[in-house]
Amino acid sequence: MIKVGIVGGTGYTGVELLRLLSQHPEVSLQVITSRSESGMLVSELFPNLRGHVDLAFSEPDVDLLATCDVVFFATPHTVAMALVPELIARNTRVIDLSADFRLKDAQLWEQWYNMPHTAPELLEQAIYGLPEVNREQIKSAQLVAAPGCYPTATQLGFLPLLENNIIDPQHLIADAKSGVSGAGRKASVGALLAESSESMKAYAVAGHRHLPEIEQGLNLASSSPVKLTFVPHLTPMIRGIHATLYGRLNKNIDLQSLFEQRYANEPFVDVMPAGSHPETRSVRGANVCRIAVHQPQNSDTVVVLSVIDNLVKGASGQAIQNMNIMFGFEETLAINTVALLP
Amino acid sequence: MIKVGIVGGTGYTGVELLRLLSQHPEVSLQVITSRSESGMLVSELFPNLRGHVDLAFSEPDVDLLATCDVVFFATPHTVAMALVPELIARNTRVIDLSADFRLKDAQLWEQWYNMPHTAPELLEQAIYGLPEVNREQIKSAQLVAAPGCYPTATQLGFLPLLENNIIDPQHLIADAKSGVSGAGRKASVGALLAESSESMKAYAVAGHRHLPEIEQGLNLASSSPVKLTFVPHLTPMIRGIHATLYGRLNKNIDLQSLFEQRYANEPFVDVMPAGSHPETRSVRGANVCRIAVHQPQNSDTVVVLSVIDNLVKGASGQAIQNMNIMFGFEETLAINTVALLP
Amino acid sequence: MIKVGIVGGTGYTGVELLRLLSQHPEVSLQVITSRSESGMLVSELFPNLRGHVDLAFSEPDVDLLATCDVVFFATPHTVAMALVPELIARNTRVIDLSADFRLKDAQLWEQWYNMPHTAPELLEQAIYGLPEVNREQIKSAQLVAAPGCYPTATQLGFLPLLENNIIDPQHLIADAKSGVSGAGRKASVGALLAESSESMKAYAVAGHRHLPEIEQGLNLASSSPVKLTFVPHLTPMIRGIHATLYGRLNKNIDLQSLFEQRYANEPFVDVMPAGSHPETRSVRGANVCRIAVHQPQNSDTVVVLSVIDNLVKGASGQAIQNMNIMFGFEETLAINTVALLP
Amino acid sequence: MIKVGIVGGTGYTGVELLRLLSQHPEVSLQVITSRSESGMLVSELFPNLRGHVDLAFSEPDVDLLATCDVVFFATPHTVAMALVPELIARNTRVIDLSADFRLKDAQLWEQWYNMPHTAPELLEQAIYGLPEVNREQIKSAQLVAAPGCYPTATQLGFLPLLENNIIDPQHLIADAKSGVSGAGRKASVGALLAESSESMKAYAVAGHRHLPEIEQGLNLASSSPVKLTFVPHLTPMIRGIHATLYGRLNKNIDLQSLFEQRYANEPFVDVMPAGSHPETRSVRGANVCRIAVHQPQNSDTVVVLSVIDNLVKGASGQAIQNMNIMFGFEETLAINTVALLP
Repeated sequence: MIKVGIVGGTGYTGVELLRLLSQHPEVSLQVITSRSESGMLVSELFPNLRGHVDLAFSEPDVDLLATCDVVFFATPHTVAMALVPELIARNTRVIDLSADFRLKDAQLWEQWYNMPHTAPELLEQAIYGLPEVNREQIKSAQLVAAPGCYPTATQLGFLPLLENNIIDPQHLIADAKSGVSGAGRKASVGALLAESSESMKAYAVAGHRHLPEIEQGLNLASSSPVKLTFVPHLTPMIRGIHATLYGRLNKNIDLQSLFEQRYANEPFVDVMPAGSHPETRSVRGANVCRIAVHQPQNSDTVVVLSVIDNLVKGASGQAIQNMNIMFGFEETLAINTVALLP
Repeated sequence: MIKVGIVGGTGYTGVELLRLLSQHPEVSLQVITSRSESGMLVSELFPNLRGHVDLAFSEPDVDLLATCDVVFFATPHTVAMALVPELIARNTRVIDLSADFRLKDAQLWEQWYNMPHTAPELLEQAIYGLPEVNREQIKSAQLVAAPGCYPTATQLGFLPLLENNIIDPQHLIADAKSGVSGAGRKASVGALLAESSESMKAYAVAGHRHLPEIEQGLNLASSSPVKLTFVPHLTPMIRGIHATLYGRLNKNIDLQSLFEQRYANEPFVDVMPAGSHPETRSVRGANVCRIAVHQPQNSDTVVVLSVIDNLVKGASGQAIQNMNIMFGFEETLAINTVALLP
Repeated sequence: MIKVGIVGGTGYTGVELLRLLSQHPEVSLQVITSRSESGMLVSELFPNLRGHVDLAFSEPDVDLLATCDVVFFATPHTVAMALVPELIARNTRVIDLSADFRLKDAQLWEQWYNMPHTAPELLEQAIYGLPEVNREQIKSAQLVAAPGCYPTATQLGFLPLLENNIIDPQHLIADAKSGVSGAGRKASVGALLAESSESMKAYAVAGHRHLPEIEQGLNLASSSPVKLTFVPHLTPMIRGIHATLYGRLNKNIDLQSLFEQRYANEPFVDVMPAGSHPETRSVRGANVCRIAVHQPQNSDTVVVLSVIDNLVKGASGQAIQNMNIMFGFEETLAINTVALLP
Repeated sequence: MIKVGIVGGTGYTGVELLRLLSQHPEVSLQVITSRSESGMLVSELFPNLRGHVDLAFSEPDVDLLATCDVVFFATPHTVAMALVPELIARNTRVIDLSADFRLKDAQLWEQWYNMPHTAPELLEQAIYGLPEVNREQIKSAQLVAAPGCYPTATQLGFLPLLENNIIDPQHLIADAKSGVSGAGRKASVGALLAESSESMKAYAVAGHRHLPEIEQGLNLASSSPVKLTFVPHLTPMIRGIHATLYGRLNKNIDLQSLFEQRYANEPFVDVMPAGSHPETRSVRGANVCRIAVHQPQNSDTVVVLSVIDNLVKGASGQAIQNMNIMFGFEETLAINTVALLP
């Protein structure tokens, strides 16, 4: 049984952490902080937790947080980088779901987030929490930067192709469709049901903050530099990411086998049979990425379909997968649930 | 560990049984039948079950079913009444999620279903599987008729009022709103997304088949005969029932306390604080009924808001709750999960 | 050709006015104001208007507005009552879509809106813009208070019953379901797609601001005082109100004929054939109220189903219907369009 | 005033034709056929047409149809090719919304539709009804093959690039997202709300029937043969297509000007300002294609965003645009309406 704290529990990744951690047999939830809702019962804000979580939100208190074995940050960027250094110094392990420690290059971070990074010394030490790539380093990590939702779906789809040098790394395309919960639980006109349901649109085509994170990860897998065109779309649904990935093949190869072998031992990546079309609902609420690979009309263009639940394998579920690895629990403990369908 | 069979596994109550039973530590799934999909892997039809259920659908075989400790029927009406008598005769216990054994009066059944009932001798013996009313009889039941979705939400909302004779039983109104999954997983124009999303409508106002079931249950709780106006509505969402119930009060009483006391020991009925407005999403995927009671403007009209997930507390979850009771497991085993929100 | 101004054009009733007025052959749009978006092209905020409306938002300017023949207010409450007196004084006619002039009783207004009414002297003069009741007075009105969305659907459904004294006026129930656009185009967590889709909930059961407006209208139709239980629900769709109305009959009468006769000459009230279940999508984008009347199980409870598009017959379309009447145009001019289905 | 007939009026393109034609000042609707619903009032099936269309469905009768000036076919493929030859022979003009006459090559048609084409002699004569390409030929056409929905959005987006030889025609990618109404108004499990809402999936990646139609059109615009990777996706909304198009640039050019000039005189193609992200809702119910062109990160990949309403500019609206051209009416007559937003 480990002691767990959560900083920033009022957003969607927060409530999703609570849903999953409250059913984790090795976790004792100690504290959950929120400046805005301090004093309110968590279950008052999120009635699905009634009877499952008795905690109230409290003001962030680094002394209290430091008594935890691990602290999750489910916060907007800049919050974690202010608090994490002290927690690390006091030997509390940290899993950050925000963007603060995902990029290795502080300059690049500052360019995309338009502000200085205040804890650049931790960027090197932070482990990028994609278990399918970094499982060994995660085991002993003090600080894990949990990947973003688009980056998870996109990297898992491109990795087998890039690791084997069979596509042109300079012309990658990721056409990604995300549910609206990806925009977070904050008041905004654009995410109103009356604005975003019954409609489809691309956004941030000129440049989305997940682009450098994805390129960083793909570059590590590729023997030569990658260049990605990344077009995210807002899709009228709550949860789910469908990444449709395009690459130009430079050799003929059995793509189905390639993917199956790459992920044969991965508990949370499901390579579907040839010809499949994964649906996001098949992963709703579940910590799994389902992938299908196609080569339409036998052309030289490979199409990879990769779906996740943005709040689970794309955020909180993957964060707990990291926790399980860090603390020596079975990797699938408490997150091997079945997706809710229909 | 008990052996479990399912007859009719291709509908929504079937896949929901599989989702929940596949994570039940005391259950060994033996067989799941489907005439139409015999031979197909269950996980091919329902990809959310990949990695969780390895069974294939098979033709119904009463000898095989009879080797189970309990068989669930997740079938359209008339299927169960054809097979159940033999299973009961061979000491296999049965939980029927269909309408075949819910009504005690075979005539009434025939009137509403327009065909003869072929196993009327079992109607008396069948226990109506609403644990909040019949928990004791369920323990030793051979045959449980799991309640319908509308009847569950409506009865749980009216029971405290009728049991205490504080409303006029002759003028009950249930205005119920159901998600489209209540119509089942069968091809029909009316349930197409393009027909039923972005729209709201009442249906079957002249008379819905759940009406006699509800009236039967309410009559048992009431000291004088009830008369219910029941107006179901098709709501543009997948899961959830919101029953808004109206009664005319004949005395002044602390309604909040009345409800809290009635359900104080019920693990799956949550009486919310005074002034609450339960949302169906707060029970999505969870086996719970959340209730709030109001007396607007201090008039003599009481308003009860009662929400369930029609596929869980309104069907498969409640069926497993019955199974837990029947086999002496902890009543909440494997169904005490947190609703998926958002 | 009349000159038309709009105050407050950035909300949903504003864009809906623009959609309809831009295709009205007798209207010349002169000015549309918005403090927050002054200077921005209307079609930049609402791209559906590209090529149809060339105006930009401007600061409210009473001199400019006073040059118009009629000014619509599509504003939150309190805005109209500050500007309308001067416009009326300068002989500009006004159609107010907000709540400022709907109630005749300033005290009642203050009680429900928690602030003083600053133009109580206009309350008597203001004509309540429900053409099915007040057509004659509307013709010469200087100031029309366009009805709210719930009040339109509810009154049109109850009127035939109350005008003929055939139901108990003390026990009326209106169970109303509204699409989310009813909450307006303003940032709020509760109206996010991720919060309000795939869910159903009642709200404001203790008392909604439309309650006194509805009761005022029903009292005018009833020979004895009415008492209404009004329960609004937030429904996961953009547009539409479905009001399900319940009354206790005190005599037996041909309800279908009663409704058909009442609305025989009304261009925008459609009494559907006996046994019908109107869908909100059948009025999407159209200025019509469709009604069906039922007497389920031949009990003494009458059930009226009344559907409108909350932004059209429940707001902007009805406002233009009033304008047509006020200026002697054909009442149906430019608003007799076909609903968008599917 | 021309006499108009419709064959096959029970589907979504049929009801959309009726919505638009019933408000067309130069059209007299003579006949609408449906084998399955013969005798039923059109407005009984589609209540949005109550008060607007008085016709009943009738059995197809070629003599009656031949009295019309123009007959629309809103039928599944194979129906038109059986009836059209006789109508053409009797000098009735035809606008076919189905796929029967879109491909010029009968072999190709047979390969994709798995059956012989029974009127191959008309393929050459049929004019492909994309006014932005074939306006002149449409004027005198006897038989117009109205384009499919995906082909309309995709061709309008690629045309300026291919006509000017600035992208590699051998590596075109169209990632298209369609609302569910594209699947038609027929009972099917996959298009149920409970199956297709709250989910996103690709389909027919191996080969969709619109692929040869698109390639045919693009080849006509390109100086060298095109090769397209076309990935359609089912999107949880009723109406709308969002095509995201990718091409590799072979020269640097002002893309914004290129698109603006190409469509400067087109009433129904709206090139949005640089940096725009068109939403499908901005064209809901309207006969317009909105386009934005991007060159993200200044790479050599051009991204075109092209949105239409699949039932309007992608089907019935465009068919009426063709009719207006054929009969010398103003091209925008009765179809220049404003999209319904929100």
